[in-house]
Amino acid sequence: MKLELVVVGKTTQKWIMTGFDDYVGRLAHYLPCTVREVPAAGAMVPQKAMEKEGKAILEKIGARDWVVLLDERGDEWTSVQLADFLSKRMNQGVGNLVFVTGGAFGVSPEVRERANQVLSASRFTFTHQMIRVIIAEQLYRAMTIIKNESYHHP
Amino acid sequence: MKLELVVVGKTTQKWIMTGFDDYVGRLAHYLPCTVREVPAAGAMVPQKAMEKEGKAILEKIGARDWVVLLDERGDEWTSVQLADFLSKRMNQGVGNLVFVTGGAFGVSPEVRERANQVLSASRFTFTHQMIRVIIAEQLYRAMTIIKNESYHHP
Repeated sequence: MKLELVVVGKTTQKWIMTGFDDYVGRLAHYLPCTVREVPAAGAMVPQKAMEKEGKAILEKIGARDWVVLLDERGDEWTSVQLADFLSKRMNQGVGNLVFVTGGAFGVSPEVRERANQVLSASRFTFTHQMIRVIIAEQLYRAMTIIKNESYHHP
Repeated sequence: MKLELVVVGKTTQKWIMTGFDDYVGRLAHYLPCTVREVPAAGAMVPQKAMEKEGKAILEKIGARDWVVLLDERGDEWTSVQLADFLSKRMNQGVGNLVFVTGGAFGVSPEVRERANQVLSASRFTFTHQMIRVIIAEQLYRAMTIIKNESYHHP
């Protein structure tokens, strides 16, 4: 199984970029991991921005990909549940598992509809930049749980 | 009202330190904010480490302080609920509002008992270093919500 992380806009905060690159690098020890960046729509009304970004996101997603959208209005899982979820997708023979994080205002309804699962990291609202490093760390943590390594303290 | 952030151990990941310092600096525009670091207990069995760190945490807390413990087993709030909570404490005339984040294995029962509120940032397990930058960002976000500034997109 391959992992793809689809993000909207460049990571402008350098410390987040460092943390994100660190965890993506660690993840890549376990399975191939690609980051696909979609341009942020820039200054326009939120709905138009989400629409434009949504189209660009959907272009990055293949017909047979399994898609997880990170969104505040999703289900909340524990790290162990995320690990179980990854295991199941691997056992199911999923080729591409795609995690999508939206732009500053979220994602369009079309992206939400395409998602096989909507996942929320928190009831707190995080910046769309911080959510990147959070999901990268959680995916790394999930792999260490699957491999029974010492990173995760239950 | 003054804010105090009690953390266990040095922030060893430089990117987290940068993000944490950034948000603590921004927070300080709204209210006095002090970071109090308690030494990590180092290599010992988790229970002993939590006990030792717990004692050091409690020494940092005054009898009249209002204490929020960040812990996976706490209540989950939205960012707006956190802002409401801060407003209420200010209106109540709380002098010191203390946010405690524990060490790698959590905190001792004594710290949990002392806490006036236990708050969970996520059902995911984060590193005890990442939780620092997360709570600092949320406290900053909460202040921008209270002041009706444009940082938070509802």
